[in-house]
Amino acid sequence: MTDNNTALTQEQLEAALRQIGAERYHNLHPFHRMLHAGQCTRAQVQAWALNRYYYQAMIPVKDATLLARLPTAELRREWRRRIVDHDGDAPGTGGIARWMKLVEGVGLDLAYAESTQGILPTTRFAVDAYVAWVRDRSILEAIASSLTEMFSPTIISERVSGMLANYDWITKDTLAYFTPRLTQAPRDVEFALGYCKQHARTRAEQDAVLGALRFKCDVLWAQLDALHYAYVTPGLIPPGAFVPA
Amino acid sequence: MTDNNTALTQEQLEAALRQIGAERYHNLHPFHRMLHAGQCTRAQVQAWALNRYYYQAMIPVKDATLLARLPTAELRREWRRRIVDHDGDAPGTGGIARWMKLVEGVGLDLAYAESTQGILPTTRFAVDAYVAWVRDRSILEAIASSLTEMFSPTIISERVSGMLANYDWITKDTLAYFTPRLTQAPRDVEFALGYCKQHARTRAEQDAVLGALRFKCDVLWAQLDALHYAYVTPGLIPPGAFVPA
Repeated sequence: MTDNNTALTQEQLEAALRQIGAERYHNLHPFHRMLHAGQCTRAQVQAWALNRYYYQAMIPVKDATLLARLPTAELRREWRRRIVDHDGDAPGTGGIARWMKLVEGVGLDLAYAESTQGILPTTRFAVDAYVAWVRDRSILEAIASSLTEMFSPTIISERVSGMLANYDWITKDTLAYFTPRLTQAPRDVEFALGYCKQHARTRAEQDAVLGALRFKCDVLWAQLDALHYAYVTPGLIPPGAFVPA
Repeated sequence: MTDNNTALTQEQLEAALRQIGAERYHNLHPFHRMLHAGQCTRAQVQAWALNRYYYQAMIPVKDATLLARLPTAELRREWRRRIVDHDGDAPGTGGIARWMKLVEGVGLDLAYAESTQGILPTTRFAVDAYVAWVRDRSILEAIASSLTEMFSPTIISERVSGMLANYDWITKDTLAYFTPRLTQAPRDVEFALGYCKQHARTRAEQDAVLGALRFKCDVLWAQLDALHYAYVTPGLIPPGAFVPA
């Protein structure tokens, strides 16, 4: 849209972020298309729920890692809300607890899922890379890596309606995780996108923001590659990982 | 071989390590079997050389990370040798430089390979997890994670003879990386295995050593899963990764 040295306007930066989503967000991955279209076996949905549990469980760890680096009470209050969303205010509340309803609903043992012992090594490597990014990169890049949430309301709507329509063993209660995300994600994005547009002023800072979103798309995409490889095509489960009953 | 609380003898510990290799070392991966049997296209060998370059390039970083944690000059002298092996004593020497001969020999642009911009995200996540392991775990677990070298002379012999026999565009000079490894790896293993056998005395320490080797096998296996997925079956290259000419 411009040469590589000129700073983008705020609108151009947002457009460039949306372009990355249109090319790299994991709604484009064949595994997600299968999942939503009802083409997954119950075993494949189990593998997805089990592996994605590790991602869900590490999100508040990721957010706490960033929280510890934020310099003002205002920023920390904003970011702290994300941890509350996932960890809840009491046992059985919050996003992780709601994810466990899905784990249970697809017929997995809760203690087995919580142990994470059967997840694919690639899931762990990818999720841990996300936590490391937030710890090691600039605060601007750390915040920008959350911007995949710009694209999540669409995928969540597709996922909930597609899964309810196509799998008779999935209920609305099983998918309880997703409904609050439809309001939480846009609220979180409003802050994070505003922060990035305001603080990424030089082209180098803007390129760092774009790179952070590409990185995060890779984190999500790599998890689906590994699921697809292990449980669909060619269907080679790595040693030690979950083997469906 | 014993119940889960009794400490193993040194011989039992070594046998348990060898058992992990027999079940999880990446010589068992279908991509490696293809590579050695001459069933890879040149493009697939390029993808392997390109991605594995990142692993090779990070090995001395991994070793320097451990070096910085070792408490005695004796241990540091031992471990420093590994960095010399990979980084060499002058431009054009050492394991990384020899790996570049392979990169060149398979027809890749050296600057492109060195930029690592086309590697699979999973390669980066897995290799970075290895560096993080050596930084964050106990020194015993860090040293134990190098023990995949116990199994490397066999795979290297198979690889060199198989690739020379099956690909007419691969020469002995292209595979110069591997020959020194046949003597370096056993020497390195002699120290690392001896260290682990001597220092892992409780069953908990021994289990940590076994866990470290399993982890490292996962690091190697996940890289081949990602290569196989992207470039063989189903052959879905993630956004931004190397696309063969």
